[in-house]
Amino acid sequence: MIAVIAGGVGAARFLQGLLAVHRPSDITIISNVGDDAEFFGLHVSPDIDIVLYHLAGIADEERGFGVRGDTFNVLEAISRYGYDTWFRLGDRDLATCLARTHLLRKGRTLSEATAEIASALLTPARIIPVTDDALRTKIRTDDGVVDFQEYFVKRRTEGHAWEVTFQGAESARAAPGVLAAIREASAVLITPSNPIVSIGPVLAVPGVREALRETAARVVAVSPIVGGKTIKGPADRMLRDRGLAASPVSVARLYEDFLDVMVIDSVDAALKPEIEALALPASRQGLDVVVTDTIMASMEKKAALARAVLSTAGAR
Amino acid sequence: MIAVIAGGVGAARFLQGLLAVHRPSDITIISNVGDDAEFFGLHVSPDIDIVLYHLAGIADEERGFGVRGDTFNVLEAISRYGYDTWFRLGDRDLATCLARTHLLRKGRTLSEATAEIASALLTPARIIPVTDDALRTKIRTDDGVVDFQEYFVKRRTEGHAWEVTFQGAESARAAPGVLAAIREASAVLITPSNPIVSIGPVLAVPGVREALRETAARVVAVSPIVGGKTIKGPADRMLRDRGLAASPVSVARLYEDFLDVMVIDSVDAALKPEIEALALPASRQGLDVVVTDTIMASMEKKAALARAVLSTAGAR
Repeated sequence: MIAVIAGGVGAARFLQGLLAVHRPSDITIISNVGDDAEFFGLHVSPDIDIVLYHLAGIADEERGFGVRGDTFNVLEAISRYGYDTWFRLGDRDLATCLARTHLLRKGRTLSEATAEIASALLTPARIIPVTDDALRTKIRTDDGVVDFQEYFVKRRTEGHAWEVTFQGAESARAAPGVLAAIREASAVLITPSNPIVSIGPVLAVPGVREALRETAARVVAVSPIVGGKTIKGPADRMLRDRGLAASPVSVARLYEDFLDVMVIDSVDAALKPEIEALALPASRQGLDVVVTDTIMASMEKKAALARAVLSTAGAR
Repeated sequence: MIAVIAGGVGAARFLQGLLAVHRPSDITIISNVGDDAEFFGLHVSPDIDIVLYHLAGIADEERGFGVRGDTFNVLEAISRYGYDTWFRLGDRDLATCLARTHLLRKGRTLSEATAEIASALLTPARIIPVTDDALRTKIRTDDGVVDFQEYFVKRRTEGHAWEVTFQGAESARAAPGVLAAIREASAVLITPSNPIVSIGPVLAVPGVREALRETAARVVAVSPIVGGKTIKGPADRMLRDRGLAASPVSVARLYEDFLDVMVIDSVDAALKPEIEALALPASRQGLDVVVTDTIMASMEKKAALARAVLSTAGAR
């Protein structure tokens, strides 16, 4: 069994490769929920959905969110009722949120609702939100603290993100199966996602970091930072706002209490010694660094990256 | 002030004429809510909405429900999650229901939510649901008791409607303004709507029949039965299933404790004496019958009918 700790688009693209080279039924995806939000009373889970849509083959891969070819007729109509529509929820995407919200209102947990939706979309792997409890990422900007989606979508990540907090994290309980998936895995993979706002909320759930430290499996992370930049999203700027370099070194530091292998891109090969030299907790065996091509420009490259990661993780 | 007791499409068409010939701000529409339902967790109020859409000029008048030119992308997508989609909720129509549901969940009453939606649609008259409480029309068919929408839409009113009941009616309280609108009106109009399932639920709310009996205003109903048939809908068959003739006489009987004037179509002119001869409660002055063209085939005819009704009601 492989456990994958996943964010949004970067995770979805990585998982496309992974599912192409490994048996899907052996994969458990643990999803970020810190960017969940409510619009018009609908429970929106952007990271869960973008992964589901990619795995179901219906994602709008160019736009990076929602369903390919979606329309925005509900959004246009609801603007008439005074609702903000900067969160571009398409009609098909909205149907997913409507189903989820309905299941939650009927008393299902988020993980139960996610399982039902994943099953309906014939998603070929298990996906669990890290927690069924409310955990919301908040960003302290120059204008005060805002919800993640306001920072991410409405403000297009412009301006500084001085502080990132995870409201509700302290009392959040890991969803059923999350900790066991990590503890019993033969490999744990951390997708090339924003370490602060995509992987960070998962790590903030009590028990997750402990499970990562204690699992017998190798924990392998793929750096989302390549050549000092992110392919997509604000991870590079968020690291700098935190006083860290936009570098795989900083990513490794954020994971250093549990990480076994850091996978970095060939353009960053020179950073290998610096990462290997990171001071690690005495209990760990030391940090391996694997250098490979991490740019997932095609299905072949996604599959190749997944193979490299699995190989270094020692997964069968 | 004119109070109008309204059902769905027939009411909407009649109101188009009324608003063309009378000051909209002097009109209070009291709407049926017995056909309200919940689909995918959304609160659907078909009679309120079809009236709003007609008055806002966006109704799909041919189809008789929803918004003109609407699409069904959410519906198509949500079918994938196992939801029935026989209730054809279009995307723009769904936006209305989403706004209503969100307002209700935030604690607004149905009448408050309706006022907000009507305001956003620039509807030029006040519309109040007869009650803010849950009142649901149930139909006893050959296959047992079903919700109104199941009978009306899913079964297309096929088969018999042996009994019609209004769940929740006994404990329902008239919404703020409803009883006052009737009591203080200079005329009360009952639209050419199904007397059993469109006007019936309004009359079932405690206080409404009393207000209709006691108001000083003339109460004028337009028969939805013309030549033994309804223009649209199952009123004729429902009357027969109840052992009544499909005739304006039966409609007048259902209203006889409060009705002052029955407006019937020219083709039914021969029924005038029979209606006038109906035994009425001693307190009433007797029942007038006005014969006119009630087929609302054009805007001119709608306006002419409204003028005739206002004239017989003695409304200024």
